[in-house]
Amino acid sequence: MNTERFHINVPKIDKPRVVVIGGGFAGINFIKELKDGPFQVVLLDRHNYHTFQPMLYQVATSGLEADSISEPFRRIFNSYEDFHFRMLKVISIDAKNNEVKTLIGNLKYDYLVIACGTKPNFFGNENIAKHAIPLKSVSNALDLRSKFWQCLEKANMTKSDIHKRATLTFTIVGGGPTGVEVAGALAEMRDHILTKDFPDLDMELIRICIVDSNPKVLKAMSQKSSEDTKRYLEKLNVELLLNNRVEDYDGRTVALESGGTITSETLIWAAGVTANTINGLGENAIEKGRYLVNDQLRLENQINIFAVGDVAFLKTKDYEKGHPCVAQVAIQQGKHLGKNLMAIHHGKVSRPFSYTDKGTMATIGRNKAVVDFPNRLHLKGFFAWIIWGLVHIYYLIGFRNKAIAFYNWAESYMTYDRGTRLIIKPYVPMGEKDAAKFIKQNEIGI
Amino acid sequence: MNTERFHINVPKIDKPRVVVIGGGFAGINFIKELKDGPFQVVLLDRHNYHTFQPMLYQVATSGLEADSISEPFRRIFNSYEDFHFRMLKVISIDAKNNEVKTLIGNLKYDYLVIACGTKPNFFGNENIAKHAIPLKSVSNALDLRSKFWQCLEKANMTKSDIHKRATLTFTIVGGGPTGVEVAGALAEMRDHILTKDFPDLDMELIRICIVDSNPKVLKAMSQKSSEDTKRYLEKLNVELLLNNRVEDYDGRTVALESGGTITSETLIWAAGVTANTINGLGENAIEKGRYLVNDQLRLENQINIFAVGDVAFLKTKDYEKGHPCVAQVAIQQGKHLGKNLMAIHHGKVSRPFSYTDKGTMATIGRNKAVVDFPNRLHLKGFFAWIIWGLVHIYYLIGFRNKAIAFYNWAESYMTYDRGTRLIIKPYVPMGEKDAAKFIKQNEIGI
Repeated sequence: MNTERFHINVPKIDKPRVVVIGGGFAGINFIKELKDGPFQVVLLDRHNYHTFQPMLYQVATSGLEADSISEPFRRIFNSYEDFHFRMLKVISIDAKNNEVKTLIGNLKYDYLVIACGTKPNFFGNENIAKHAIPLKSVSNALDLRSKFWQCLEKANMTKSDIHKRATLTFTIVGGGPTGVEVAGALAEMRDHILTKDFPDLDMELIRICIVDSNPKVLKAMSQKSSEDTKRYLEKLNVELLLNNRVEDYDGRTVALESGGTITSETLIWAAGVTANTINGLGENAIEKGRYLVNDQLRLENQINIFAVGDVAFLKTKDYEKGHPCVAQVAIQQGKHLGKNLMAIHHGKVSRPFSYTDKGTMATIGRNKAVVDFPNRLHLKGFFAWIIWGLVHIYYLIGFRNKAIAFYNWAESYMTYDRGTRLIIKPYVPMGEKDAAKFIKQNEIGI
Repeated sequence: MNTERFHINVPKIDKPRVVVIGGGFAGINFIKELKDGPFQVVLLDRHNYHTFQPMLYQVATSGLEADSISEPFRRIFNSYEDFHFRMLKVISIDAKNNEVKTLIGNLKYDYLVIACGTKPNFFGNENIAKHAIPLKSVSNALDLRSKFWQCLEKANMTKSDIHKRATLTFTIVGGGPTGVEVAGALAEMRDHILTKDFPDLDMELIRICIVDSNPKVLKAMSQKSSEDTKRYLEKLNVELLLNNRVEDYDGRTVALESGGTITSETLIWAAGVTANTINGLGENAIEKGRYLVNDQLRLENQINIFAVGDVAFLKTKDYEKGHPCVAQVAIQQGKHLGKNLMAIHHGKVSRPFSYTDKGTMATIGRNKAVVDFPNRLHLKGFFAWIIWGLVHIYYLIGFRNKAIAFYNWAESYMTYDRGTRLIIKPYVPMGEKDAAKFIKQNEIGI
């Protein structure tokens, strides 16, 4: 329909074309390996920027500006030869004709790299989808930031304690790193900022809950880390509802599997995700919702289609259930595939991928963090927190963002303050119409 | 309707209550004078933050983060005694009963300070209101930022040069400081960033126009400054359509008074503003759309109601048409009224306001600025630009924002780069329904 006015407009040149769908950790690290190489690279993404996802919770909790964790693709790659970015959503893949389909036309590829990550999985519950706030995009994070401060302003003008409590209850679904980090940051804000900002409000009315179906938080980490984290959370007055599940949510009442309920006007979805698979490759290509790849990160039965990062399902002896959906895997797979593609092109041998676990970490709050090193060494407290900060700053794209993030943290640490307490675009729950508009908007991405 | 669940909830204490409507330059500078004084101060605003309006154009043109020019009221005032902020819109003023009316109830005052500034004035043209982007709020600035980068991405995928040109034409209505500053910043981005970011796009297709009904730009400044600015703009390839007016706009075609048209998918409204007057004080209280005040900044025929800043109309020998709507007047009036109120309370004499013109300035781009000092000294070029930067950083609220703004500028200056080129919330033209929802949203502000 838009093909009369628009076209994808990538020049045909005498180099094989690599189309990359998605500019997350996997996508951008893959492209970096191909810099000024023998390929034409086309990156397709619905956003014009890369998001440093592990730090989204910082934006949501007023710790960092949205701009500090986002880096425009064109800025990252504007010195690359034969690189093209198009802000487009891919509708389907046509492997027979070697092309991807978008609303404004088709694009031929010689190699296709699927790196479009995951989206929140509400397990088919439309009520939850409508009322919960996920934490997968910068826009989500800003919504949560607005919602949080709106709740505080609202509660401050609410008559009854019952209503106040409902407005001031923040329920987080999922006790993984994101859930734990959001809960910790909210609790620290309560203790250090809200007491000053809302002196008339009874801080006892603020309730922060984590609901998780597992018997422990941070189940992917060591027993020690999990236990330390539990202690940290309890110290911060975060309620843990473990061995439990959220079954429904109408915007006010959280229905739990156990039969209980939580009256909570905010539900933060830090639980399941599902891979962003694309139409066209058939059901056989998919295992456990992700693209099944071999140790070359190539799709089964395909010659020139690869998948990397969260969207890829790679089963090895050490990872029988596939690799974890974390930044490190995505980064390593992206880099590995980039090196392999260069090798293939130069007639060299392509090597199997093997994941090097560099350790896992999570931060719960000021001086409260846990680190599991691959050698089973476990660290907690102040030193773990410093390591967490350094590693995250190191991986942030671009000197500018690093400098601003460092400045923000140094300032927060010294002053116990958080700067970006703004309701710039008020959070409005997404009605069905808005949702439809939003989706349409994102189809062609322009 | 909301009064069952909500109340304004300001404690009654043994101090006279001062209600301040609006936390712009006038409002916050007024409140600062009353710090820990003999009054209870209640600030009402629809936003939870103060906006440094002179820098909005920097946010719109990817130079500064939104968060750097916004400061939460509760952060500014959280060390003040007997200060209360409520995120509420005032619906009307009832001078007889000394109270202001909001959707969640009424609030009594002993003194009322109206400081709610201005809003864009589209002179009753609904088409323009629907399609133009004003530059009065942080949200506007982010909309313009998104729109600008959306246009670039879109043009890059557009087939015909005619459509490309329409998408890449940015028409600015108003040749005052905001219009000139936006035009200059867009032109600099074209020359230093877009050439690198969009190498396939013909930069000749980008058109930046300023339409103004006056025969010159910056009409409030000296003849010299106006001429220098004109030269700077022409050097930057900004088209000036002076002695002309925008009569209509349908989202694509700008109809000019002269009979000509500009095909332009973006219309930036940096022209007229109108004061945010509130129902209830009668037509006699208003002159030229603003509240008529005497030299004590008190409304005619009122004992305890004052107006300061853009919303006030103060006629003096030097300012027969009222004082200009600029930050300096608002700051000085706010401070002056604060001091007067303290004097009145202590039985001292309240003094008449007199404006000290500290000079005017505008920046067109890198090393391109003009400054008029009150002694008729005129400065331009690099030194004017440095002065502009220092003055604006000096007035930015809070050390944190100053540091980040300084960092951004220093970096931009050295690298010719601008960091925040993000389309976080895509710009969607506001339909009537959305507009209604937006207004409703802002009524109670929560």
